[in-house]
Parts: sequence; C-alpha cells; structure tokens
Amino acid sequence: MNKPGMLIVISGPSGTGKGTIAKILAEDSDFELSVSRTTRAPRPGEIDGKHYYFTTVGEFEKLIEENGFFEYALYNGNYYGTPVENVEQKLLSGKNVILEIEVKGALKIKDVYKNDYISIFIIPPSKEEMEKRLRERGSDSEEDIKKRLEISSAEIEMAHNYEYLVVNDTVENAVSDIKKIVAVEGLKTKRNDNAILKFKGEVK
Amino acid sequence: MNKPGMLIVISGPSGTGKGTIAKILAEDSDFELSVSRTTRAPRPGEIDGKHYYFTTVGEFEKLIEENGFFEYALYNGNYYGTPVENVEQKLLSGKNVILEIEVKGALKIKDVYKNDYISIFIIPPSKEEMEKRLRERGSDSEEDIKKRLEISSAEIEMAHNYEYLVVNDTVENAVSDIKKIVAVEGLKTKRNDNAILKFKGEVK
Repeated sequence: MNKPGMLIVISGPSGTGKGTIAKILAEDSDFELSVSRTTRAPRPGEIDGKHYYFTTVGEFEKLIEENGFFEYALYNGNYYGTPVENVEQKLLSGKNVILEIEVKGALKIKDVYKNDYISIFIIPPSKEEMEKRLRERGSDSEEDIKKRLEISSAEIEMAHNYEYLVVNDTVENAVSDIKKIVAVEGLKTKRNDNAILKFKGEVK
Repeated sequence: MNKPGMLIVISGPSGTGKGTIAKILAEDSDFELSVSRTTRAPRPGEIDGKHYYFTTVGEFEKLIEENGFFEYALYNGNYYGTPVENVEQKLLSGKNVILEIEVKGALKIKDVYKNDYISIFIIPPSKEEMEKRLRERGSDSEEDIKKRLEISSAEIEMAHNYEYLVVNDTVENAVSDIKKIVAVEGLKTKRNDNAILKFKGEVK
C-alpha cells in the first residue's frame, strides 16, 4: 500500500506569488493542485477546470447545500470554495494535495483536520515588493491595489494561524522550502509506524 | 541580534550510530554538541571539557542543588548530567545545541521545554543491521549484545515520545535528514516573528 499523501494548505495575501508557487509545485508528480470553484469571472488566460472551476452563483449555492465544499467564503463579492470531490481519493493514492485558499477557508480546514495537515503562509519579502508584483500582474485596478496594500498588514498577522512561514524572495527558494517542509513532515514519527514495525520484524 | 539556535535532542537504542551522527553534525559551525558532566574518572585519552566535564561528587551534588542540570542520573555508581550552563548562552548566540541523551533524560527535557525543542529518535534499518553494528563496535560482550537485541523492540517503541524518526540506513542520509529537519523547523511561524515585523515595516 502507498504511504498516504499529505494535505498542504497554502495561503497568503494577494501579490505574494502563491499561485505561481502552487503551479510549479504541481508540476512535480508527487503533488497535485486542488482546483477551487469560484463565481468570479475568469481573468484573461484562465482556463476552466485548470485555474478554477468557474460556476454560477446558483450552482455554487446548490453545492453548498450538498456539503460539497471543505470550506467556502465570500470574498470581494465572489464565492470561492474548496470542493471535497477527489481530495480524499488523491491523498489515499499517495499524492500530496495542495489547497491554495484564503485565510478564512484555511481556518475552517483547521477545524476539520486538526493537526493532520501542513499549513503554510507565504509572504512577500516587503510591502514594496508586494506592490510591485500587484502592478506587474496588471489584473487589479489601482483602487484594488491600494485596498490590498492597506489591508496587507492585518492579513500578514494571520500567519500566526499557520505552522510554517515561507518568505517568497524568489519563487525557486519558496518552492524548494515547501518541498523541504513536506519531506521533513514525512519524517514525523506519527507518519512512520511502518518503519517501527519493520524494525521489529512485524512487517517486511 | 542573531536568531536564537534550536535545542535538538537525539536518542536511540545502542548500535544505531547516533554518537557518530552527533559528532558529524557538530563539525558544522551551526551546531554544537552539549558536553555532559560526570563524576567518573577520565579514561585514557579523554579530555576535560571535550569528552566530559570531570567533576567531584561534592561539586556535582552542589550543582544538583542549584538546578544546574537539565537532567542527571546515577549509573554504575557515577553521576552523569546534562548541564544547563552554556546551553542557554549557546542557543542565544545562534548555535543549534545537540543533546545526545538517553530516553529517560529526554523525557525530563520534555517536561521542561514542552514543544520548544526538536526531538529526534534514530533507529537502525533492521534488527539484523543493529546486531552487525554492535558486533563491529567490538566493545560489548556477547551477553550484552544479546540483551541489547532482546530489549531493542521495547526501546524502539520509545520513538513515539519523539517528534521525528530518522532511519540510519547510511550516516550521510541520517545527517542530511537531521539538517533538513532543523532547517524546516526554522521555517515555523513561531520562530519568524521578525519576518512579519519586517514586512510591516516595523523593523529593518
């Protein structure tokens, strides 16, 4: 039997580059990205089923009623939700499943999964860098950027709800840090009953 | 100010190679091995302050009264203790301090330090490999080896008191695993208040 995969929750303010980081992680065959469902309009280049499942408000609310989400939240007037579908199956098959979600959603995952998942908060190295990235992305209005920067100090405080803090100075470093975190979490005694049984000769 | 170092407690049954692993780790300038204090006489070649601090019974008992030990034990008529002195200072200077101690001692560290240290249990890959290593070491009698192997299954169960389990298949892998654990523990949010303050512009 495969060793089960780990559930990895990644959050961070907008402009941290967490989307890029999650995408690069998912290129590794040990990782799979959980695709969120949203009612917000697709941005240019975003593909349904890859970046998000784009959904009407009606469809979304039907799924809420059917307990189809680990968590969902209303953010900036749009629904965002993490669908239950497939995640458990993927974990059992040995894949590490990445949930890239908002802070409120992550807190709900904490309620359900207790300490049996890995929580990582990603921050940009500085507010100046965050502003630069938001502008480079070019998808937010000037007003949006100002608002995001204003609330960023409060958002950063949410890091205290996450076990790990990764500073995204470069994407390569951040991806490497996250891979190390997952490798080391795999060395936790609670995940290695098998090594103990093997030593005792009780399993091959 | 330096980021404080981390306290690393390493245990494991005899014949796991934990002594070798600790010695190799201590060659890295980020790590320092805690030197125990004992009342037993120095063996030929043993240097005071390097292998042990050699002490009279009177001095040792005075230190006990002054709470000068993390933990101590009487073994074969001699005291052995892990001195508090220097450890705290070394931690504050940014060094990671390695305590290579017995399980009983490690449990006492747990009482004092709660979760503010890293606990690692090292096991050999199999009982056969453990037997081979004990014989190669050549310092144990045949009776000792048999006894150690007999109690090894019970000793291995003590792993559940440690957060991490490292299988010493090769010394290089085990040392590399421990360095990764320490690096990743350094990414814990609780150890990175400074990165959060820096983002908010409250420190440089």
